[in-house]
Amino acid sequence: MRIALAQLDYHIGNFEGNLAKMLAAVETAKSQGADLICFGELAVCGYPPRDFLEFDDFILQSQASVDALKAVSHGIAIVVGAPTRNPVVAGKDLFNSAYFLSEGEVLGVQHKALLPTYDIFDEYRYFEPATEFKPILFKGKKIALSVCEDIWNVGNENPLYVISPLDEMMPHKPDFILNLSASPFDYAHAALRIQIVRANVERYGIPMFYTNHTGAQTDIIFDGGSIIMSPDGQVFDEMPYFEESVKVYDLDEVLRGGRSAEQPKNKVQLIHDALVIGIGDYFRKLGFKKAILGLSGGIDSAVTVVLAAKALGPENVRVLLMPSQFSSGHSVDDARQLAENLGITYDIVAIKPMYEAFEAALKTQFEGQPFNVTEENIQARVRGTLLMAMSNKFGNILLNTTNKSEMSVGYGTLYGDMCGGISVLGDVYKTEVYELANYLNKDGEVIPQNSIVKPPSAELHPGQKDTDSLPPYEVLDPLLFQYIECRQGPRELIAMGFDEALVKRVLRMVNINEFKREQAAPVLRVSSKGFGMGRRMPIVGKYLS
Amino acid sequence: MRIALAQLDYHIGNFEGNLAKMLAAVETAKSQGADLICFGELAVCGYPPRDFLEFDDFILQSQASVDALKAVSHGIAIVVGAPTRNPVVAGKDLFNSAYFLSEGEVLGVQHKALLPTYDIFDEYRYFEPATEFKPILFKGKKIALSVCEDIWNVGNENPLYVISPLDEMMPHKPDFILNLSASPFDYAHAALRIQIVRANVERYGIPMFYTNHTGAQTDIIFDGGSIIMSPDGQVFDEMPYFEESVKVYDLDEVLRGGRSAEQPKNKVQLIHDALVIGIGDYFRKLGFKKAILGLSGGIDSAVTVVLAAKALGPENVRVLLMPSQFSSGHSVDDARQLAENLGITYDIVAIKPMYEAFEAALKTQFEGQPFNVTEENIQARVRGTLLMAMSNKFGNILLNTTNKSEMSVGYGTLYGDMCGGISVLGDVYKTEVYELANYLNKDGEVIPQNSIVKPPSAELHPGQKDTDSLPPYEVLDPLLFQYIECRQGPRELIAMGFDEALVKRVLRMVNINEFKREQAAPVLRVSSKGFGMGRRMPIVGKYLS
Repeated sequence: MRIALAQLDYHIGNFEGNLAKMLAAVETAKSQGADLICFGELAVCGYPPRDFLEFDDFILQSQASVDALKAVSHGIAIVVGAPTRNPVVAGKDLFNSAYFLSEGEVLGVQHKALLPTYDIFDEYRYFEPATEFKPILFKGKKIALSVCEDIWNVGNENPLYVISPLDEMMPHKPDFILNLSASPFDYAHAALRIQIVRANVERYGIPMFYTNHTGAQTDIIFDGGSIIMSPDGQVFDEMPYFEESVKVYDLDEVLRGGRSAEQPKNKVQLIHDALVIGIGDYFRKLGFKKAILGLSGGIDSAVTVVLAAKALGPENVRVLLMPSQFSSGHSVDDARQLAENLGITYDIVAIKPMYEAFEAALKTQFEGQPFNVTEENIQARVRGTLLMAMSNKFGNILLNTTNKSEMSVGYGTLYGDMCGGISVLGDVYKTEVYELANYLNKDGEVIPQNSIVKPPSAELHPGQKDTDSLPPYEVLDPLLFQYIECRQGPRELIAMGFDEALVKRVLRMVNINEFKREQAAPVLRVSSKGFGMGRRMPIVGKYLS
Repeated sequence: MRIALAQLDYHIGNFEGNLAKMLAAVETAKSQGADLICFGELAVCGYPPRDFLEFDDFILQSQASVDALKAVSHGIAIVVGAPTRNPVVAGKDLFNSAYFLSEGEVLGVQHKALLPTYDIFDEYRYFEPATEFKPILFKGKKIALSVCEDIWNVGNENPLYVISPLDEMMPHKPDFILNLSASPFDYAHAALRIQIVRANVERYGIPMFYTNHTGAQTDIIFDGGSIIMSPDGQVFDEMPYFEESVKVYDLDEVLRGGRSAEQPKNKVQLIHDALVIGIGDYFRKLGFKKAILGLSGGIDSAVTVVLAAKALGPENVRVLLMPSQFSSGHSVDDARQLAENLGITYDIVAIKPMYEAFEAALKTQFEGQPFNVTEENIQARVRGTLLMAMSNKFGNILLNTTNKSEMSVGYGTLYGDMCGGISVLGDVYKTEVYELANYLNKDGEVIPQNSIVKPPSAELHPGQKDTDSLPPYEVLDPLLFQYIECRQGPRELIAMGFDEALVKRVLRMVNINEFKREQAAPVLRVSSKGFGMGRRMPIVGKYLS
């Protein structure tokens, strides 16, 4: 038996586009003699469809796509994920299902039982868990069909569910496991996925074909890396990261095993590739081509613009240099040099006239008040307004350049430097931004070395440095990582050796700035805990604040 | 037996404050001879605690509060909601539990089985559902303890769950039902709650004591209205809306029934009271006192400022009047009149100098480009920057005045009039804003009549009216209501008689503006489907757009 896996970049709600891609993949697989082709979880509608699932019309269109695939399932079986109606009145109205289509018929449907409802996932919001598990019989083989999370209760020290669906299938002695996934990227996730697939293969002693999505849906990036694992627990093949791919495998060869084709996993490279895809798909899927951002001469905007130029082409990226009276001379030079290195259009617009107009307008009200964060914020908001004006006039979408360290502690101006359609670095700590900068310069200097080595500064008052109000990033970032990614509380953090006063101060900064993150741009997610839908915190809470 | 219900305004994560309130309520109940007192769901930590539940420390502090209540449960039993650890490794790590504390001991614990995971609720994100149900025996009575949603599968045409926990209790013949809830307000919810309580009482033939929270947690408002229902299905008592209250009931009297004490439910009044509480609690719980907002002479800012003055006191509300060259003379007059009617401080700051400074700064770039939405947005962003500058300098929190109709169709400027810490009217359609305005004027004109009767306009270009780019609100609002609140798709909307072209246009406007709502301030929720956590839509989706 020859099995094709199709790892595609779906688009949420774009039924026509998704179907066209799948039909093309069916043709490719057929031409290579495949007996069946397997697509991803909820492939017909894209993932995550969120509350579109509450519209009857959305389910009807999903079913129409399944019908269209069923109609072409001649000479090749098609396995595809789609939402389906729960015919029973009690319980949620939908199932998250895998359809097995063959010769114009539905040969079988397997619903998902384990519904991820944590981090960015909300599946129990929509779906009823499956209670029946039965392999599909196809061309003499028994296929254990499963959807994504249904394999994740195995090989897990703290299993989230009380059953493991494949356990229920095993009395039927299936020949192999076919898993339809939509498993989002984080820089450690490809390795974890392989570990979970291996735990299943070892537990059940049969091979697994695991199909993932690729491409980004706003903040959520899918990295592909679909897995074919032999019963010997070796990765027979791992499909490419961040690319569409259709490949055909011979079941007998996979059963034989003895082949290890796992791809190298380099953290910085994975983050880099994810961000380039993330930017690109945000624009492509919204029908935009051109970006704009502010270049300050600092490292965050430098890294962002290089990534944007890679994703969209330098001809589609435009920048504003917006010096103030507090900007150092070299900042403009560094920014200009970078723009020239990339071959992108830049304009220099000084913010002083607008800043002074605001000062004059509020002179009576501000009489006798000292210069403080208010005036710093006015500068940031003048820049935001200039960038948005360019964006509105020319249709360039504003990219936000705030990094995760700043976003964590609220070091940034709401409606100022926090403006933008999508946050490129909001899930990348400052220390990781430096790693990215060096990675981007690995084949020759693109980002001026000066932007990398100078002490970070917002340049909003004379001589300002980030370390005036924040601990050094080498200290701050590991603390933030333990608090945000690892959910360690004050007691655990102090036990790890972090200074008690620092822990209290930093946790307070993180918590009292929830109101800013609530209004932030969506953040391209590259870690296991990004800001946005994956981290849900009260605003008026009084805890560690 | 005498049963006390305590409907309190908890504060998420404020363990000390919540405990102090509960201890005071215990004393009150004791002094009135109560045998037991019942608090709300997750009362020790406040609701919804969201991802704070993922911190071990948060659970330990919750348990410490339970222990403190246990220690004082002498002469009176205390029933209280708290998160508890699930001792079994498989499944979620927590239960959402009701503790029955008596004479310094835990007499029983009932976990919640039905975990609301829809709209604003995310409970399956954290909790394992209960599988055991047993009444508590106390002073010769068998008490069916239940947490919130566990009574909601009864009396429901489309039940979300496959079991009804109280069904499992009934073989033990309990004497009455005690329900600990955290049931948020919407203007139709108090009536629905009574209907569900009645369906349970009629099904099981025993009385119910239902305890709710009151007060607001950012966007989510609890309206109290705790219910005591006799076996005859009549409301023996309904506790006040939007107020803390501790009341003691005699079980025999409730059993006897024959009394109907349901409160009147007036939609506009309920929305009004909810918004006043919502504003007040946002400030009190964040430790702020003073608000600021922009007064345009239009109806949205007029209604917002009156609500703010009621919530915070006129002495704590300050406004800016920020006319442009496109503002009509009467707009400033109306705004000034309103400020004087309320006795609040106002400043007039013309935006022309900043607007002209931006025009001059971008002159080269904008050469030959016509005046369009860019220039309109610059005006709105200058106003946002002025308001935020006042906010930063004086600590007044900015109130957002955008209404739900505008927010739905994206008629508003991101980082401009969409600025603010909390959106007061973001869940109130424009037609409802008029109803609120008339309600606020019912005892004499506070809002100048001219602000109510003039055609709505953003006044961002000469002679502009909302109806230049939007259908009349009398047409738009019902369509939005059917799409947003009722999740009706295009086919259903057209079948209802809405014009096909209009349906297509409006649904498209709603969907392509998801990116704006993603960055909006949290919205005080007063309807069954507010923007924010309760409505989760993809941004890059291509559906009805």
